[in-house]
Parts: sequence; structure tokens; C-alpha cells
Amino acid sequence: MPYEPPMDGDAFRRAGHELVDWIADYWDRVEELPVLAQVGPGDIAEVIPATAPKTGEPWETIVADVDRVIVPGLTHWQSPNFFAYFPANASPESVLGELLAAGLGVQGMLWATSPACTELETRMCDWMLDLLGLPDRFRSTGPGGGVILDSASSGALIALLAARERVAGQWRMGELVAYASEHAHSSALKAVKIAGLQPDQLRLIPGDGEHAMDPVALRDAMIDDIVEDRRPFFVQATTGTTSSTALDPVPAIAAVCKDHGAWLHVDGAFAGVAAVAHEFRFVNEGLARADSYSVNPHKWLLTNFDCSLFWIADRQPLNAALSVTPEYLRNAASDAGGVIDYRDWQVPLGRRFRALKLWFVIRSHGADGLRSFIRNHVALACDLDARLASHPAFEIVAPTRFSLVTFRHVGGDAENERIRDAINASGRAYVTHTVLDGRIVLRAAIGAVRTEARHVNALAELLESLA
Amino acid sequence: MPYEPPMDGDAFRRAGHELVDWIADYWDRVEELPVLAQVGPGDIAEVIPATAPKTGEPWETIVADVDRVIVPGLTHWQSPNFFAYFPANASPESVLGELLAAGLGVQGMLWATSPACTELETRMCDWMLDLLGLPDRFRSTGPGGGVILDSASSGALIALLAARERVAGQWRMGELVAYASEHAHSSALKAVKIAGLQPDQLRLIPGDGEHAMDPVALRDAMIDDIVEDRRPFFVQATTGTTSSTALDPVPAIAAVCKDHGAWLHVDGAFAGVAAVAHEFRFVNEGLARADSYSVNPHKWLLTNFDCSLFWIADRQPLNAALSVTPEYLRNAASDAGGVIDYRDWQVPLGRRFRALKLWFVIRSHGADGLRSFIRNHVALACDLDARLASHPAFEIVAPTRFSLVTFRHVGGDAENERIRDAINASGRAYVTHTVLDGRIVLRAAIGAVRTEARHVNALAELLESLA
Repeated sequence: MPYEPPMDGDAFRRAGHELVDWIADYWDRVEELPVLAQVGPGDIAEVIPATAPKTGEPWETIVADVDRVIVPGLTHWQSPNFFAYFPANASPESVLGELLAAGLGVQGMLWATSPACTELETRMCDWMLDLLGLPDRFRSTGPGGGVILDSASSGALIALLAARERVAGQWRMGELVAYASEHAHSSALKAVKIAGLQPDQLRLIPGDGEHAMDPVALRDAMIDDIVEDRRPFFVQATTGTTSSTALDPVPAIAAVCKDHGAWLHVDGAFAGVAAVAHEFRFVNEGLARADSYSVNPHKWLLTNFDCSLFWIADRQPLNAALSVTPEYLRNAASDAGGVIDYRDWQVPLGRRFRALKLWFVIRSHGADGLRSFIRNHVALACDLDARLASHPAFEIVAPTRFSLVTFRHVGGDAENERIRDAINASGRAYVTHTVLDGRIVLRAAIGAVRTEARHVNALAELLESLA
Repeated sequence: MPYEPPMDGDAFRRAGHELVDWIADYWDRVEELPVLAQVGPGDIAEVIPATAPKTGEPWETIVADVDRVIVPGLTHWQSPNFFAYFPANASPESVLGELLAAGLGVQGMLWATSPACTELETRMCDWMLDLLGLPDRFRSTGPGGGVILDSASSGALIALLAARERVAGQWRMGELVAYASEHAHSSALKAVKIAGLQPDQLRLIPGDGEHAMDPVALRDAMIDDIVEDRRPFFVQATTGTTSSTALDPVPAIAAVCKDHGAWLHVDGAFAGVAAVAHEFRFVNEGLARADSYSVNPHKWLLTNFDCSLFWIADRQPLNAALSVTPEYLRNAASDAGGVIDYRDWQVPLGRRFRALKLWFVIRSHGADGLRSFIRNHVALACDLDARLASHPAFEIVAPTRFSLVTFRHVGGDAENERIRDAINASGRAYVTHTVLDGRIVLRAAIGAVRTEARHVNALAELLESLA
């Protein structure tokens, strides 16, 4: 029997228009929904049948289940009252870019499999380099360049693999040592484990009073390893840690790396994008001596997940670490060597046309619009910081340099857990916690696309009422 | 200055409707476009400005550039005349699922960060298990379960990491040996390299006359390693190789793995989905003794990239290999242990709501519709096989078990390269090549969503005219 597509062109148009409207309506009403999903384990699975239907169901039935089954089980990351973790921006333009990428359905694994996918991506990495004021060494016209990955976790991994490749043949795996701040993202340890090193081959360097890596402690740790015949090969510095947006001192760390020949990867996943506004370019300090760098437009630059930019100063060791070329992927353009095949810059082979959404976002906003977006959130964070600082029950825990406010109730850990749980159970806002200096700390990360002053004020009032 | 979003709700609705229509129009006309992009390196980059605009541009200008800048540089994977590599299905329903996932913009890294994202994903893995007739050991209600990854490359990597974890502490990294057929996908070697093994720690086992792994050669290789004090720890079998959809004999390989305690991962990325139709369930043979298994609905089951299903019989070593829990990710549900946190099943931390599109595709088609889709392509492939087999200038190189036809002109490699290049330069179809038994072989992979008999007939006529 011939295949009959259940959805023809006209039906797709109708369903597409309706779904676009549904999303617009969702964005309009999302601030009224409880931010943290108020369901228990298994509640959603219970309303999904255990097996697939034998025959196709009408589209109307299927989309109606989005409201019935899915929405109650969502934690609403696009709510303007979402202050947990870091934001996951999904601007209208980026969502349209994702739609277009899905509709075109091209693969960007090789230049030849869609030249526009590769060349737009390269251009977007160079655009972002200029927008952020990054050093020329990361420009695609030189020996390095940029790529769009799924996450900064993957960026940390491929940086580590490139660093490992650079010392391969001279040192055994068991002799290698990597370093990161004790406040570095969990992806640092995850990358170390994936790459086949033991967890104790990652040294977690203590932070200073502001939770930034102590470069003297880094140097001491490296020297200890060197005298024991181990090889310091990789350092991950963080500009804007997850817990408190602490800034590791990249210039001093770069000097230590240079002295001992270690690769320097800088993770600017959240805060790095702030550099679109010139007054935040301090976040770039020292990058001219870094080997690789990550920032995530999918956190705080209006571009829906996934869109993580990764730059490298010398792509050779990265490509050497990741390139495997079977006959069925060989083609004239790759053989001639004049093109980028981004499959050699990532773990998977296949890749989506992620550059489209970034292109839409940047062109639609312009550099000025992106700046305004960032400045607006930082101003809101400064307001919240000032308000909590002046309240007798709260104290600010770490400097508010970007749009994350870290604070605690002075009454102790239990009090902070009570406040966090009360906020999240209310559905009116969502905040998460961390631990700094052994104490529970609450975090309010401002940065959702639709967050305005009134939402931050409502959070402050909620906090004050619970204090 | 306050942030002014360039696109408000009404503008998003308008732009969204127009883009949906643009995609519907694109799908209508894509068969008229040259399948392989007819541009040279740099041609697309040249028409993209070198820097981002200072101020925002009107949406109309931006989308007009999709036609002007992007489309000429695309290789049209959604063309019904696309027969290269393997297909990359993007059905209307899956594209709408991707749109919805982008619009909701939730993160599925933890159960708590959107319970519906995790629980729908788990349900979809169980649905697919039943649709494909897979063994119960992969069902989520047991010690194993399924997850949706970006690619089968990532599946091969995490399977290898789980296998490595299972022998960690007993054997040193340098003593481990992995095995795959010489016809296995390049991701096998890529995974080995990423995981910190040397390339020579992957043994490529010779294929038999049909390019399937020889299990006797596998056993011999393992025994050679064991007597040299090395530890066979991982075997990757392939059901449907990239070059010729050869079927490694999984039952015999499983017996060898069991005897020597090696992890068995089966890569059914392309052909595995054929098992939705019962007559193709031979592709599942032996899976009841596999430790992990991958299939890609994003290749040949109507679901746009990325959507790669990965099942594992015992999730414990996988989670042990990948789990790193910093304070800022701790939450009550995870601490209580009754939920799945899919971040521990993959390399990145963040994750999209990929299950939505698979839910849309399965419900819209039903099991019967999915079967019909697969059967249709296999029938077309058999027709092409018969037609080429009866032509004096062509010979079929490997059995057409699924929807890939491998063939060659009897005139030798240069003749086959000439025919391939002529087809691809014509823009009327796109085929790629491989090498089997030292000779260039052409591949026609039938499986694009819009491929009908007339497109396959046109390819056959083109081949005959070039012969």
C-alpha cells in the first residue's frame, strides 16, 4: 500500500499557523503559570498511553494534548519570573530560525553537504568575535576559528581533547594533569572523565575571597605535579562561575599556563555575552592569551538552545583529535583542503543549521539592540542587589557584576531553604541555590527575554514577605 | 535605555505564518532545485557582510536574504531526488514538534527542570521499543532504559564510556581493546579516540563476502589480545552498515562477547527503524543479548535531526561514567532517587525537548503509517535494484535488504566516478560513493520523505543515459 502522508501542504500551513499562534499565546500567558512544575514523579507519564496508537490520530487531538498533557508538567523557562540556574533565552527571532533550520533539514557535517550552513556559521562566529571584542587570534581567517556547538560542556570537552592531542606522544595519559577552580562548572570534571583521565587528574584550585581561582595556588599545584613527573596540560578558567559569576583572573592564569606549556580554555558560558556592551569588556581580559573560549548565546543572548560558540586559536590539534575520514565521507572540496568540515570540530557527525537563528537574532537586534538587552538585565540585577542589601534580613554574598544576584537570609541555611522552597511552591517565581563558603546561598539570575522591572520587584516583595 | 524587543507578539504571528508558508512552498518546489549545491568555496560567505549591523534591520529584509543568500548554497536534503549518504527525514509533523520545543524553550537536564520533558521522552523510548519489537531488557521500567541523543555517534561514545566504567579499577586504560567491523561507522574510531584510547586499541575485524563482521575472526582477535594480557571490553556491531547496509551477525557476536565479558553495543542507526514493519524484524536478531542499541528516527523515520534513540540494558555504569553533581544542580526529586535525570545519559548538560517531535510523528502516523512509510521505500529500492541488475552496464554490489541500493558500472572506478560526478553536477539527483572490496561503488539511499516512484525512475533513467 502506498504511503499516504497524514499531513499535506495545506494541512501543514494550517497546523503551522495555529502552532505559531499557540506559541505567541503561550508567551503572553506564561507569566501567569506556576514557574516550577507542580507535579510529582510519574504524574505526566500516567496520562500518556503506554503504547503507540495503531492508526494515525487527527492532528487536532494531538495538539490538544499539548495543553492537557505537556503544559502542566513544564517548568517554564520562558516565564519572566524564572530566576533559577541561568536563563535559557528563546526570542521570537531565534525560534523562527530554529523553525527554518528544521524545515530546510540540511546537514552541516561537511562543507559539501550544505555550503551555506558552514559558511554562515563561520561568518556568525566572526560577527560575534567583533560584537564581543574578542582577540583576532580566534578569527576564522587565521589558523583558528569558531564553531557553534550544542553546549559549553561539549566545548570544555573538545578543548581538553585538543590539549591532550597537543601533548600526545610525549606524555602518557596517566601523567597528565588538568586544573580548574573549585567553583568551575561540573562539565570540567565530566570532560576529564569522558576523556579517560581519572577524576584525581583534575586539580580543583581553591578560590579566593570572591570565589575566583587563586593563580598562586594554581602555580604551586603545577609545580608540585611537575616535580612528581606529571604534566600540567590543561587549565579551565571561568569568567562568570555558575554559583556566583566570579571571575577567574585570566591574565595571571595565562601567565602560569604559558610558563608550563598548559592549554588555557576559558569558559565564559553565561557572562561572556555581556561583552556586547563595552562596559563589560573586562570579562574578556586575558583572552588574547587563551587557547580556546566558549560563550552561550543560548543562555543570555536571545538565542534558543542550543547555540554555544566555541573559538580556538589553533584548530590543528582539535581537528587531529576528532577527524576520522571514511571513504563514504570523502569529497572533492574536502580533499582539496580549502573548506571547513565542522564534523571535525565536534563529537557527533551530523549537525543542524544552528547559525540561522543567530543570524536572525543579530540582524534583527543589531549591535545596539543586543547591548540594550544585556544592560537592561544588569540594571534590574543592580536594583535587586540594592534592595536586598538594604533589607536587614538579607545579605549579598558576592558582587553583582552581571545579572546574577547571590544573597542569603542571615538566619542560616534552614531559613534559606525554607524561603527557596516557599518561593518555588508558590509558583510565582523560581530560584535555585548553591553553596558558597559552606553556606546555602540563594541565586536570582535575571535574564529571561520577557523579564521586566515589575517581575523583579515582585520577586523582591515575595522575598521580603518571606523574610 | 529600556530594551525594546524588535518583534512583538503580533509581529511574531505574522512572521511565523509567513515562514510556515515559505517552508511549505520550499517543500513544494525543492524537487526543482539542484540537489547538490552548485557553488564554490567562499561563494556564500562573500555575500554575507563581514560584520554585524549596528542597528536592527527590518524582518522583511532578513527573511528575503534566505532566498538570496542561503538557498543557493544549500544541498537539498529534503529533495525527493536526494539519494546520497542516508536520508535526513524532516516530516511536517516533526518540524512542528521542533517549533514547539523551541517556543517552549525548556531544559530537560534534570527531571525537575521540566518533568514533562523527561517523562514524555521515557514514554517515547518505550513506545519505540514496542514499535520496533525490541527486547524487554531495554524498557525503562527495568534497570535499563532509553534516551534521545543527538546522534548515533554520541550513542557509540557513551556506550564505550559505560563499558569502560564497567571494567574500571580492574584494568588499566592501556590494556583495553575495542572491536568493530572494518565496515563500522567512523564514529567507532572517533569514540575510541575521544575516550582516551589509542587508535590501535580498536581492532577492525575483517568482513565476510557480504561485508558483515566475521565472528570467528572476532573471537580469534580477542583470544590473541587475552594471551597478551589485554582486556577485550567493547564490541560495536552494526546492523546496516553505512557503505552497504551489511548486517553483522549479532547472535554470534553476542556469544563471543559473553564468553569474554565484553560489552556489546549495536549500531542500527539507519536500518534499525525498519523493524516497525514485522518482515524486517530480522534486523533485531540477537539484541536480547546486547548491552546497548542505537537507532535514528532522524534518518529514516520521519523525524527531523536530531533524534537518535539509545537504549541500555543497565544504566548504572552509564550514569556512573557521566554523573557529576555540583550543589547548584541538587534538588529534592533527584536526591530522593525516584526520577531520571537525563543529563547523566549524555555528554552535554543542557538538552532540548526532543521527544515532542517523535510524539507528533508517531501519533500522527500510527504504527500502520510508519510501516507503510518504510515499506514504500524498500519497494522502490527493490525496483531500482531489479532495473539496474538487468542493465548490462551495471551490477548490484550488495544485497538490497532495506532501501539502500549499492551498484557499480562494470567499466571500472573511473567510469563510476564519472557517472557520480555527472549526476551530481546535473542537479537532478545526488548520489555518493563508497569503496567495497577495493572498488568504487555508487550508493542510492532511498528514504527522503517526498521520494516517490517517479523520482527513483528518473534516477534510473539518468543512470542509464550516463552508462
